[in-house]
Amino acid sequence: MSEPAQREAVNHGRATIRDVARRAGVSVATVSRVVNDRPDVSPETREAVLEVVRALSFSTNRSARALSKGRTGLVGLTIPFVLGDYYSLILSGATEALHEQEMRAVLCPTRHEHDREAALVERLMRGTTDGAIIVLPSESPGELSDLAAQGFPFVVVDAPMPLPERIPVVSATHWAGARAATEHLLQLGHRRIGIVTGREGWVATEERRDGYQAALAAAGVLASPELVRSGNFEIPDGHAGARELLALDDPPTAIFACNDNMAVGVLRAAAEAGLRVPGDLSIVGFDDSELARVTTPALTTVRQPLEEMGRMAVSLLSRLIDGQRVETLRVELATRLVVRGSTAPPP
Amino acid sequence: MSEPAQREAVNHGRATIRDVARRAGVSVATVSRVVNDRPDVSPETREAVLEVVRALSFSTNRSARALSKGRTGLVGLTIPFVLGDYYSLILSGATEALHEQEMRAVLCPTRHEHDREAALVERLMRGTTDGAIIVLPSESPGELSDLAAQGFPFVVVDAPMPLPERIPVVSATHWAGARAATEHLLQLGHRRIGIVTGREGWVATEERRDGYQAALAAAGVLASPELVRSGNFEIPDGHAGARELLALDDPPTAIFACNDNMAVGVLRAAAEAGLRVPGDLSIVGFDDSELARVTTPALTTVRQPLEEMGRMAVSLLSRLIDGQRVETLRVELATRLVVRGSTAPPP
Repeated sequence: MSEPAQREAVNHGRATIRDVARRAGVSVATVSRVVNDRPDVSPETREAVLEVVRALSFSTNRSARALSKGRTGLVGLTIPFVLGDYYSLILSGATEALHEQEMRAVLCPTRHEHDREAALVERLMRGTTDGAIIVLPSESPGELSDLAAQGFPFVVVDAPMPLPERIPVVSATHWAGARAATEHLLQLGHRRIGIVTGREGWVATEERRDGYQAALAAAGVLASPELVRSGNFEIPDGHAGARELLALDDPPTAIFACNDNMAVGVLRAAAEAGLRVPGDLSIVGFDDSELARVTTPALTTVRQPLEEMGRMAVSLLSRLIDGQRVETLRVELATRLVVRGSTAPPP
Repeated sequence: MSEPAQREAVNHGRATIRDVARRAGVSVATVSRVVNDRPDVSPETREAVLEVVRALSFSTNRSARALSKGRTGLVGLTIPFVLGDYYSLILSGATEALHEQEMRAVLCPTRHEHDREAALVERLMRGTTDGAIIVLPSESPGELSDLAAQGFPFVVVDAPMPLPERIPVVSATHWAGARAATEHLLQLGHRRIGIVTGREGWVATEERRDGYQAALAAAGVLASPELVRSGNFEIPDGHAGARELLALDDPPTAIFACNDNMAVGVLRAAAEAGLRVPGDLSIVGFDDSELARVTTPALTTVRQPLEEMGRMAVSLLSRLIDGQRVETLRVELATRLVVRGSTAPPP
């Protein structure tokens, strides 16, 4: 194998400024002058270089700058599903932000399957993309640390598990959001407030439950364990949890469901029990998905800035790809309470 | 420029079996034998070739076969938005089908902006992808014909406009679905049936309106123009259309909204008018999105097989990319009526 061929192979098949120079029959410095639009190049040479650049499928500006650094202009986006508002909103924010930077997402749905995700990320690393955004990774903190150690730039959105400091993570203020939701119910006069939590062991689940308990504690209200049910973020979980809570001898007058899906399930359980919402039972969700606006009544919920989280992940990733220094690798975006029709004073 | 370098440039920078041969220092025939797992290659040569194949970011099987034909393993997916069930379901079906074929989608959201879509498709054609799936194109039939004439393989999902025969299109049976929805209302005893149609000029809009009118005609019911309102597939359109219909001197006892978003708007207008659904007013939607299951009552609607449409587009596209003969380039997948709680006999 000749020496330049070897260098290309090591470069994982991506076109570099060196490839352009070789194919156009000019020096690397000349390609650089053309790509950076400097005047000291003859029109003929400029056109010859641009011809090769075009043939290599790159446009000018960011793409050309990327080319000069051996970039693909592609970012891997691994995400459990592309269905449902939670995922769609993150995806929408990320793809729009990528579009603005003349980059594209290579979409890799993982279905929460660990092996599938690992295989996808490995493939993304092999030179097919410049970096990755990993939404709700199923990989362990150790595996993600290994990935970071290999120098492949990536940003995690909403880590289910606590991750080492050096791994970039974009998330939302779960604790503050849950605390605000619970305080809202307390201010309305509720004292028996049930909660249906999310998947056990997840950061979001623990922070939301802690926020709920912190608000109760601050108000001097006993956090009764019988008022806590656990779910898995799906409609049937909210339904089952609420049925159990409403069957208690001293049932709650309000239920905080830790996402909007589960709040829809709580609404169903209330309807089945003949309870009016919010007259007999108040309900608060979490996420502010489209669902929250179409239920009757519309849901009081905690808004997560999901599109903004997708955008922020792109912004952080593109700085990492460019080799810029990033002051902090942890970004928590603020949640906020949105009061609609599903909450009122207790009966 | 040397002759092999020129050939590579013409090949738009994608790695071909020729590149692998050159880099591994073997013949093209040898690479072919290794890639197709034939026995007549020494272990050393096999390993050397596989080393280069790996360095070029390709795995074996489909990817290796693709490599031997100069493929990228990437498919462009232009889609107006990634938000909302309609788009998410098509996207979900397509990305899963691509995953099964060891291909990936490069996601290009267009926001219905014609210039943006044209630029994206042009970029996809320049060798960065093997083909494209174009969901609800904003390009004209003429522009799509030009694209087809250039030999770039693509499949359209849900063409808003009628397209020439030779352009592959996957869609759903809008006419039959709308006819079934209207027949269901007629069978319940409704005779004053309003409709809120979709965007003017779109194939789906015209076929659904025609299906509604065909059902009325078959039942000998006069299709009164005052019962037809037009919308744009969003919640406020259904709301506005229903308000106008309910304000008529002789208001309808049932409304067929041409998608579920607009049916949610009709539900709101009914609630504001103090009408019970389905006791005072029956409502039918179209799509069977997640929304249809979370409203109170849940919506009777026409199910579009959206995930299956995404899968079918991938299946058709991959045959086109492989150069297989395709018997028909038009696929219409069946819709079906799903009866839930929003329809009943008229009061």
